[in-house]
Amino acid sequence: MSFDRMWADLAPVGRDPATGGYRRFAWTSTDATLREWFAGEARGRGMDVVPDRAGNLWAWTSDPDAGGPGLVLGSHLDSVPDGGAFDGPLGIVSAFAAVDLLRERGVAPGRPIGIACFADEEGARFGVACAGSRLLTGVLDPDRARALTDDDGTPMAEAMSAAGTDPRWLGRDEEALRRIGRFVELHVEQGRALADVPGDAGAVGVASSIWPHGRWRLDLRGRADHAGTTRLDDRDDPMLALATAVREARASAARHGALATVGKLRVRPNGVNAIASEITAWLDARGPVEDDVRAVVAEVGAAAGTAPVEESWTPDTPFEAALRDRLAMLLAGADGAPAPVLPTGAGHDAGILAAAAIPTAMLFVRNPTGVSHSPAEHAEPADCRAGVEAMARVVEELAC
Amino acid sequence: MSFDRMWADLAPVGRDPATGGYRRFAWTSTDATLREWFAGEARGRGMDVVPDRAGNLWAWTSDPDAGGPGLVLGSHLDSVPDGGAFDGPLGIVSAFAAVDLLRERGVAPGRPIGIACFADEEGARFGVACAGSRLLTGVLDPDRARALTDDDGTPMAEAMSAAGTDPRWLGRDEEALRRIGRFVELHVEQGRALADVPGDAGAVGVASSIWPHGRWRLDLRGRADHAGTTRLDDRDDPMLALATAVREARASAARHGALATVGKLRVRPNGVNAIASEITAWLDARGPVEDDVRAVVAEVGAAAGTAPVEESWTPDTPFEAALRDRLAMLLAGADGAPAPVLPTGAGHDAGILAAAAIPTAMLFVRNPTGVSHSPAEHAEPADCRAGVEAMARVVEELAC
Repeated sequence: MSFDRMWADLAPVGRDPATGGYRRFAWTSTDATLREWFAGEARGRGMDVVPDRAGNLWAWTSDPDAGGPGLVLGSHLDSVPDGGAFDGPLGIVSAFAAVDLLRERGVAPGRPIGIACFADEEGARFGVACAGSRLLTGVLDPDRARALTDDDGTPMAEAMSAAGTDPRWLGRDEEALRRIGRFVELHVEQGRALADVPGDAGAVGVASSIWPHGRWRLDLRGRADHAGTTRLDDRDDPMLALATAVREARASAARHGALATVGKLRVRPNGVNAIASEITAWLDARGPVEDDVRAVVAEVGAAAGTAPVEESWTPDTPFEAALRDRLAMLLAGADGAPAPVLPTGAGHDAGILAAAAIPTAMLFVRNPTGVSHSPAEHAEPADCRAGVEAMARVVEELAC
Repeated sequence: MSFDRMWADLAPVGRDPATGGYRRFAWTSTDATLREWFAGEARGRGMDVVPDRAGNLWAWTSDPDAGGPGLVLGSHLDSVPDGGAFDGPLGIVSAFAAVDLLRERGVAPGRPIGIACFADEEGARFGVACAGSRLLTGVLDPDRARALTDDDGTPMAEAMSAAGTDPRWLGRDEEALRRIGRFVELHVEQGRALADVPGDAGAVGVASSIWPHGRWRLDLRGRADHAGTTRLDDRDDPMLALATAVREARASAARHGALATVGKLRVRPNGVNAIASEITAWLDARGPVEDDVRAVVAEVGAAAGTAPVEESWTPDTPFEAALRDRLAMLLAGADGAPAPVLPTGAGHDAGILAAAAIPTAMLFVRNPTGVSHSPAEHAEPADCRAGVEAMARVVEELAC
């Protein structure tokens, strides 16, 4: 099966041998290797690869401007720091494998089939998730994107340019959008909803909606001082405000039925015997109800004595109900029960496209532990095969 | 005055233009520039520069093996991240300026005068403070030192070697130690004791002792997971243990009349939407009484659910009482009252030498705000001049 070969080809790219996790960040040399791999797979299938103005890659089985609009599958290849192998690549590898499966079966789609490789989905390097699809749809301002910097101070414009993508062309790309009739993204589940469904019926599910979610920056300022000589009462130590913010994030999220996480910090000067002068902490907050998420962010800011700076926000994103129900029935089990339908707290390019009024759906492949964004992220081979079969059926249903 | 010229020469070296603070880390190219500056100042005064086995530099006015043992002045040139201009360099510049002052006055010392430039006093790069003097006196094991790594994973042995100091020779250096009859280190005060003494009487003080102090590493382990999809109850997030450790450090130190600080963190993977898998936090603890310091460390470890790993420890270090009292009387004010005598919570190379049974004293120059390890660290020019004058009188008293 072509799936296994593609999976083996990708396995070593950007893998940290110490942790087994992946470090595949946007517009790096590792990212370039992944993009070359994508182009090579497309070429091997006779598919043309067209970049859009944001640097997302589109592989097409036939002229996307004739007989369309097309049906687009796909996902992303970049990762969080120390991420797992499945988040992103599973969707792209499954899309190619589904095309192969239909060709083996002699099924010829009646409209162009595209496979998208979205750039910078995780936002691990420049801090804005789904940067590629946000630029494509115009919800991320090009000037803001170009000026985003990584931890080394490199602007996104410079990183893109070094990778051969001209940042002057950023901006909503009508031509690329016009070609998308429908978009279906397959993704490893990042929770345990399908793990609780016994047997084959839990191998693949259909997404109902993406929770409202966002990222906020907390700038906690203090005064640098010598740790060995400054009296406790004379200190202005932002580490204490950080401790308060972390505890309040957990407590407030529990009160509001939401999720809140502080997972990234920058401490200055970060010396053992120096009281910190400044700590930047990032707060990730999500939940089923926007008002609850907003309340959590406000309460964390109040407790830490700072006004959270919103770096990204995505409102509640329901996927198209008719398409969702059609796919759930299409993927019904042997007993005729529709495939499981589940919401998710994770953002995806599919959510960005859905918010841009493109008919969009997502399929989730079962994750036995629910662990994601971790080297321990996993999906069983049988469930991955079920995902490929499901994608092939989706293409037959929607494009043949 | 030669002081002002030397001060101006050093001002730009290793200065971060964004913060105004210094980043002068051991065995870097900035450190090499500082060591070359030291050698140049020595040569300009006809002083020979001899490195010891640990890479500390010793400038001598005459053959240190004849007419000795000598009187040694000096301090260090390295800094904490974003450190001030005075911590370290003030002692070396004042020592050179004191030699100049005595020569202008036609005073010829009867024994060799040495000026020491200790390597890696702050431990900012490899985590062990006073590494140069600890290696010199044999209290830091050479194998352990060679294997210490910086944040990039570079071992100290490799960094020393790249800077031209052969790490194979590390180990207690009897020859260098034999040459030191007495050691006197001048340093900017890192607290506000002298700031509270009005007028000239508060310009310079004499150290009584260095508090017991140490550094511990807290390894807080959790499990990486997706911040947007993992239920609060399913999380093992080490950020919460960090928050507990930070709060307990402050509370426990207050209960025990000690100081405790978490100023340096390393978060893995440090992604906005990833629950941390591991946080390393460093705890700096000090106080007048060893048992209190040990109790603070134990209580922080218990609260955070981890056993603190001791990275360095220095017991209570009183300076030689007779020398201390002699210098306090020598530096008495116009009214005959001895100079202020004060303890300090900061570690110094002078403390390492005192613990190695070398007769040692320290002078402190007034710090109007008490702020140190910060770009805001300051001493008034008049107080710096008083420090140079005091060092000249110390040399006359002890070596003429």
